Amino acid sequence: MSTDVDVVIIGAGPVGLFAVFACGQLGMRAAVIDALADPGGQLTALYPEKPIYDIPGRPQVRADRLVSDLVEQAAPYRPAYFLGQEARSLSEDACGVFSVETSKGETVRARAVVIAAGAGAFGPNRPPLKDIRDYETTSVFYHVAQRDRFSGKRLVIAGGGDSAVDWALSLAEVAQEVTVIHRRDKFRAHPANVAAMNAHPNINILTKHQLVDLKGSNGTLEGIGVGRIGGETTVLEADVLLALFGLASDISVLRDWDIAIEGKVLPVSAETCQTSRDGVFAIGDIAHYPGKLKLILTGFAEASLAAHSAHQRVFPGKAIHSEYSTTRGVPGSSENPVLQSA
Amino acid sequence: MSTDVDVVIIGAGPVGLFAVFACGQLGMRAAVIDALADPGGQLTALYPEKPIYDIPGRPQVRADRLVSDLVEQAAPYRPAYFLGQEARSLSEDACGVFSVETSKGETVRARAVVIAAGAGAFGPNRPPLKDIRDYETTSVFYHVAQRDRFSGKRLVIAGGGDSAVDWALSLAEVAQEVTVIHRRDKFRAHPANVAAMNAHPNINILTKHQLVDLKGSNGTLEGIGVGRIGGETTVLEADVLLALFGLASDISVLRDWDIAIEGKVLPVSAETCQTSRDGVFAIGDIAHYPGKLKLILTGFAEASLAAHSAHQRVFPGKAIHSEYSTTRGVPGSSENPVLQSA
Repeated sequence: MSTDVDVVIIGAGPVGLFAVFACGQLGMRAAVIDALADPGGQLTALYPEKPIYDIPGRPQVRADRLVSDLVEQAAPYRPAYFLGQEARSLSEDACGVFSVETSKGETVRARAVVIAAGAGAFGPNRPPLKDIRDYETTSVFYHVAQRDRFSGKRLVIAGGGDSAVDWALSLAEVAQEVTVIHRRDKFRAHPANVAAMNAHPNINILTKHQLVDLKGSNGTLEGIGVGRIGGETTVLEADVLLALFGLASDISVLRDWDIAIEGKVLPVSAETCQTSRDGVFAIGDIAHYPGKLKLILTGFAEASLAAHSAHQRVFPGKAIHSEYSTTRGVPGSSENPVLQSA
Repeated sequence: MSTDVDVVIIGAGPVGLFAVFACGQLGMRAAVIDALADPGGQLTALYPEKPIYDIPGRPQVRADRLVSDLVEQAAPYRPAYFLGQEARSLSEDACGVFSVETSKGETVRARAVVIAAGAGAFGPNRPPLKDIRDYETTSVFYHVAQRDRFSGKRLVIAGGGDSAVDWALSLAEVAQEVTVIHRRDKFRAHPANVAAMNAHPNINILTKHQLVDLKGSNGTLEGIGVGRIGGETTVLEADVLLALFGLASDISVLRDWDIAIEGKVLPVSAETCQTSRDGVFAIGDIAHYPGKLKLILTGFAEASLAAHSAHQRVFPGKAIHSEYSTTRGVPGSSENPVLQSA
């Protein structure tokens, strides 16, 4: 599937969401791609219920409320959301139109790209096991979407936090057997649950052990090599691995996008938010310039700046008539009931 | 009276108010000076009831509500407000401490100055009459604070808008007589009120006339020279002039502050928001750098940047520990109930 818009925004965190609005105010329609299934980025993934105090004009707002407000503010401009999929490749045709392909095979075409990827795409912390991706979606999982998928299976859970302990207890009710592998000898989890896990007849616990390799073929797991830390390796017969090492961020995909990267940030012009590549802009935590502050409100201002810069590329030679939002309104607002045309 | 704070902010518009919060988050107490009697700047003075659409996370907010929210957000940091008075002079002692004097004789001392003056201090559009300032507060007024002040007076109202017409009708009830002077022959006012004014027995109307000069001495008005446009001049006997030509902004006071001014803006470093003068920062519409967008949300980001820059001058050598507001909170918030010390 291919979708044509004016601007493709990578990242549906607060700054990416506001970029939709900022583009919309200038008559540009945007698509937003995010690896997470829901908009909001870190606010949704890491601390949805925390109060935030430094959003201008909001003395206190819960992170999830801020996200829903930003989604509402963007909505009049009909963004095309591509969620639950990573932006993968970036290409550009002879006319300067970019194509971004996603991990679900969607193609989004636009004359400008705005990278609002924060610390990078959020994904599971993968254990460094050879060919692990071959087993994903069939035998190796990083979260539990459907508990029934583990029914009757020989399940290995790797990890030492609350989620490892809680899922061990929960899935022990349906799995044939559960083995928990943890590098340390203490679990960072609720003591009562750890005690329950230790006492559970259907849960084996291997502390001071780590994953070594996966045995199997064609995406079907047969066994998992596990090793005592600094000691011998054995193979556990297993059908399914549930690896619960938390979320990590990753900007490695951008290394193939022909953009200058310094460490984990993209240098941009403070004047335009453009990266080293014409037509590709970066805003929010992933963008860097002298004096940069990593604040959400700074990213909001960068979103407006990038939208203005992108406008020159999307509509070459077309002037932006600077107007107050009080007079311009938004599509569907009571003040300006008529939809604006681009 | 002298007040010592860490940062003195010139201008209590939305950007100046958010600068109070941004300074507070970094442990700095601020004073705010504004020519208007209420905080909010243009939002309060020009369009308090208008909806604003481009404040991030607020799909629609009335201007006056945004102002009250910004005041609430700043309040935990106990700003010292000096309202209804213009910042006049700026001086700096040998230790780098600035003193700002106001038009009411207040002195505010601080190690850093943040100019958030928007388009400048708002004041009345004064007609260009010789010695007019000598009559202000006694015989010449630009707004009606107390209607009784005009009782029994021979009143001249100059202007052609709604406020001229409305006040002519209202004050005709208490004044001895009212004369309305207007340059054009049509009033830009509600037709029903214009008709009522035309029919009023106690209101004389001189259209296509303008003010020429003031007659009187020691602040006591005796007459007003008025001229037909392109024609003869006559003198009206009068006790009071009410000149209703709207509000104008003025940054002329800054010309004595030893800061580079270009036209009506102050060039600043985009990296620090510092003006040409060490320790004096500018943010919001009055600040300019390459790529600058005149948006409220841009001013918010500049406020945070200026606060960080000012911190280096207020607390030399002291590092800012970058924390999310979710963990730091604000004084008195439920998350962090203990007042922070600087």
